[in-house]
Amino acid sequence: MKKPAYITDYEGWCKEFNCFFPVDVRFSETDAFGHLNNTQAFVYFEHARIQFLKVIGLMELWMKTDDVIPVTADLQCDYFKQVFFDETLQIGVKVMSIGRSSVELHYMILNEQNHVCMTGRGRIVQISKRTGVPEAWNDGTIKRFKKSQAKTE
Amino acid sequence: MKKPAYITDYEGWCKEFNCFFPVDVRFSETDAFGHLNNTQAFVYFEHARIQFLKVIGLMELWMKTDDVIPVTADLQCDYFKQVFFDETLQIGVKVMSIGRSSVELHYMILNEQNHVCMTGRGRIVQISKRTGVPEAWNDGTIKRFKKSQAKTE
Amino acid sequence: MKKPAYITDYEGWCKEFNCFFPVDVRFSETDAFGHLNNTQAFVYFEHARIQFLKVIGLMELWMKTDDVIPVTADLQCDYFKQVFFDETLQIGVKVMSIGRSSVELHYMILNEQNHVCMTGRGRIVQISKRTGVPEAWNDGTIKRFKKSQAKTE
Amino acid sequence: MKKPAYITDYEGWCKEFNCFFPVDVRFSETDAFGHLNNTQAFVYFEHARIQFLKVIGLMELWMKTDDVIPVTADLQCDYFKQVFFDETLQIGVKVMSIGRSSVELHYMILNEQNHVCMTGRGRIVQISKRTGVPEAWNDGTIKRFKKSQAKTE
Repeated sequence: MKKPAYITDYEGWCKEFNCFFPVDVRFSETDAFGHLNNTQAFVYFEHARIQFLKVIGLMELWMKTDDVIPVTADLQCDYFKQVFFDETLQIGVKVMSIGRSSVELHYMILNEQNHVCMTGRGRIVQISKRTGVPEAWNDGTIKRFKKSQAKTE
Repeated sequence: MKKPAYITDYEGWCKEFNCFFPVDVRFSETDAFGHLNNTQAFVYFEHARIQFLKVIGLMELWMKTDDVIPVTADLQCDYFKQVFFDETLQIGVKVMSIGRSSVELHYMILNEQNHVCMTGRGRIVQISKRTGVPEAWNDGTIKRFKKSQAKTE
Repeated sequence: MKKPAYITDYEGWCKEFNCFFPVDVRFSETDAFGHLNNTQAFVYFEHARIQFLKVIGLMELWMKTDDVIPVTADLQCDYFKQVFFDETLQIGVKVMSIGRSSVELHYMILNEQNHVCMTGRGRIVQISKRTGVPEAWNDGTIKRFKKSQAKTE
Repeated sequence: MKKPAYITDYEGWCKEFNCFFPVDVRFSETDAFGHLNNTQAFVYFEHARIQFLKVIGLMELWMKTDDVIPVTADLQCDYFKQVFFDETLQIGVKVMSIGRSSVELHYMILNEQNHVCMTGRGRIVQISKRTGVPEAWNDGTIKRFKKSQAKTE
């Protein structure tokens, strides 16, 4: 397994994930090659990302306000193991680094044998809904991101 | 081919379609059985429905206003022929009947050999975005629906 | 709530469901009107249908063999209540009637307040993968369908 | 606009695209934030990739044979401009570099004003369907990839 450029210490990188969300692979998510279609990885990333943002209390805020929304700045995925219909996957999410108005999240998708099927990363940016201009995180938000990085005991 | 209950005179029903929208079957829309996943029929119906509402001038209105939106009241599809990756389909739409605040649309999906692969129908209702209560069509809208039923020569 | 034609005794119809599968509404499943996109109902139906076929032991059989596959003959959905991001739904499935090579399944989608958001029905047919011709259920399969109709105590 | 790491000379990079495929943004592809859902970029990439592989004559080969299939090794996307319902996009695809059994493709998504909305890249690998092991391109395939890189006059 060739490591993606965004992972330096693979062992350590894996261990830092402490927040996982389960996903069952649906039949409609497979394709004519008989396996999970590659585009679904990003659907699972988004699902896990939003569950994560919910857990740390930010999603509620974005759904309520009309001022700011989070948008995706970039996304990437590396595919290591084919996934098939009816597997139950665990999608791990963690905060990698926090910018002024953006945050970099990393992802790891495990199958039931605990094998890494996909890894990924991406940045989201908070923008003003009216102007489209990036809007800096407030202190409360930064605190929430940082708290999520603390290891669960 | 067993006719669905919503089609009385099959020949006449087919001939009434005068508005078709092309769709290319994407690979991500197939499933592990090697053919188009059944759920995609409704994605194609919606695509054609919205193109149709655009052609007759209603979609623009709904996207601009914050007062009323069209919602789906019911939908159904009958599957007659399997569809595969890379086929180009024609999705026909027509207005079947016009209610006070709803309209019944019928659908026909043809493949390149002009075979009927799927047929369908469904009602959309115009509701108030705030209250969720059905809101009667105005005369202009009814005129647009009726005009679409006129045969193209 | 206007009852769909496929439901005669609504109370009794609801009570017959004894098999439910949970689904969390994903953000990518909403649309620009702010609610769950109508086409997703059929994705949830398929998910629940396949889980159901798995529970009664048929899905495994179809995934293993290359002889017969189940195809969708028809599908319909009635929409009663808008559904929004992050709701957890319960998708009920039951066998309504068993034909020679087809089976009619009914569906009911409940939200967390136990309100019926959508109801639906559809037939699947077992066909030969090579010829496309319907293939009669064997006795074992019919027994499995019938058993699923028995009330859970 | 911050350039992604996979683009060195932006002007030159843009000019090298000579193969574009149109896509109409469907309503079901938007989300509750009112714009195109981020996961759709990869659906459009796949659509364009497969059309591209069809144009250069490889897709037909993979659909016919049971020996080898192309799988996605990695994918990434950078988002520069929000996209909305009903826009017509042009998805550009080009071969960036050719490996022993893999190929790196780059993507550029333009809107009707010719603005770059998204850029992307990813590698696909040809594997044996039975063993999952990468299988080297034959000379004919390499020739097809190289030919696609020649500028159209």
